[in-house]
Amino acid sequence: MTSPQNASDLPESTPEGARRRTGGRSARVRAQVVEAVGTLLVEAGYDALTVDAVAERAGVHRTTVYRRWRDVGGLLADVLDAAADDGWRPADTGSLEGDLTALNQEVYDALCPGGTDATDGSGSGSGSGSGSGANLTTALIAASFRSAQAAGALNRFWEGRYARSAPVADRAVDRNELQPGLDARALLVTATAPLYQELLLLRSAPDPELPRRAARAACAAARAGVFH
Amino acid sequence: MTSPQNASDLPESTPEGARRRTGGRSARVRAQVVEAVGTLLVEAGYDALTVDAVAERAGVHRTTVYRRWRDVGGLLADVLDAAADDGWRPADTGSLEGDLTALNQEVYDALCPGGTDATDGSGSGSGSGSGSGANLTTALIAASFRSAQAAGALNRFWEGRYARSAPVADRAVDRNELQPGLDARALLVTATAPLYQELLLLRSAPDPELPRRAARAACAAARAGVFH
Repeated sequence: MTSPQNASDLPESTPEGARRRTGGRSARVRAQVVEAVGTLLVEAGYDALTVDAVAERAGVHRTTVYRRWRDVGGLLADVLDAAADDGWRPADTGSLEGDLTALNQEVYDALCPGGTDATDGSGSGSGSGSGSGANLTTALIAASFRSAQAAGALNRFWEGRYARSAPVADRAVDRNELQPGLDARALLVTATAPLYQELLLLRSAPDPELPRRAARAACAAARAGVFH
Repeated sequence: MTSPQNASDLPESTPEGARRRTGGRSARVRAQVVEAVGTLLVEAGYDALTVDAVAERAGVHRTTVYRRWRDVGGLLADVLDAAADDGWRPADTGSLEGDLTALNQEVYDALCPGGTDATDGSGSGSGSGSGSGANLTTALIAASFRSAQAAGALNRFWEGRYARSAPVADRAVDRNELQPGLDARALLVTATAPLYQELLLLRSAPDPELPRRAARAACAAARAGVFH
C-alpha cells in the first residue's frame, strides 16, 4: 500500500508540479475512498459496504481500491487510521476536571446523533472528520464486531488517543492536583467509559451532565490514588 | 406469545398431570429455543441465525417458532429476557468495595473467554446461563447493533441488573460508608463501564486487577459525592 506521505520523500529536485501531482493524487484518492466508506457505512450500514460500492461512490477505479485496500476490512481499518492521523491534541483548560470534561464532551458529541454543538470532527471518538455526522463513530464501532481488521484499527485509534491524552495527567501532576506516578491510561479509560456505556451500549437518552459527571468521578478516583 | 408462567394460573381443579404437561411443555420449548439461539450465535454468529436454523437446532416445529417468536429479533429479545428472569441478586460482602468488586468480577467472567473460575452463568452480563460459554455475552451485545429488538432487550436486561443492584448502594448508606441520596444507577454504571470498555470495545488482554480497580474508582467517586 502506497502511503500518501511518501511523496514528500521525493528529492527536492523533482519539479514542484509533478511532486504535488503525485502526492496530491494519492492523498486525494485516499480522502475520496475514506469519505465514501464513511458515507456508505452511515447511510446503509456494514452490509452495504463492498469494495465495488466504495469504488463507485468514491469515483475511483475498482482495481485501484482492490490493489490498495484489498477488502472491506482494509477499507475500515484505513478509515480509522486516517481518523487517528489528524494531529488531535486534548484541550488544556487549566484543571484536571476541565480537561477530562472537554475530552468527554468530544466523545459525547461523537456518540450523540444531533447532539450539542458539533465539533470539528477531531473528537476522541469521532471518525474521519468527513462531516458524515455523529453516527459514523457508532457505525465504526459496530463494524468492529464484524471485522477483525476494523477491531484492530479501532484499538489502535483509541490507544493513540489515550497516549496523546497523557499530558492531561502530566499537567495535573505539575499543578499538584495529583501525585506523580499514576497510570494515565487507566484514568482516561475510567473518565470516558461511562459515555460509551450509556450512549453506545445502553443507548440511553443523552444527558448533558454526563461528560462532567464522568470526569468528576475519574478525578475523585485519581485523587484517592486508585490509579497509582 | 404464551408466557410459560401462564400454566400456574390454571384453576386448582385442573388435573395435576395435564397442568404440569402444559406448563412444562411451554417452558421446555422456550428453554430449547433459547439454548439453540445462544449456541448458534456463539458458534456461527448473527448471520447464521435464522428462524429455521433455530427451529432445527432446538428440535421444535418451525411454525411454533415463527408463531411465538416471529423473527430473529424476537428470538434475541427472548434470550435476553430469559436471562434477565433468573432471580439474580448481587453478592453481599459487607463493604461497598467488596460488593462492587463482586459485581465487576461477574461482568469480567462473562466477557473474558476462558477467563478465571466460571460462575454459574447468572453474572451481570452473562447470557442465558445455558453454559454456552463466555462469548455469549459478547455475541448478544454485537447482535444488539444489528437488531433494534435485541438492543431494546439488552437495555432492559442491563436496567434490570442496575435496579436489582441498588441494594449495594443502600447497604453502603446503612453502614455509613456513603451519605444517603445518591444515584445508585450512576454509581453502578461507573463501576462496571471500564470492564465493557476494556474487554468488549478495546479487546484488551484480560487484567485480573481490573474488577477491583474499577470498583475502587467508583467507591472513591461515590465517597467524594459525585453521584449525589
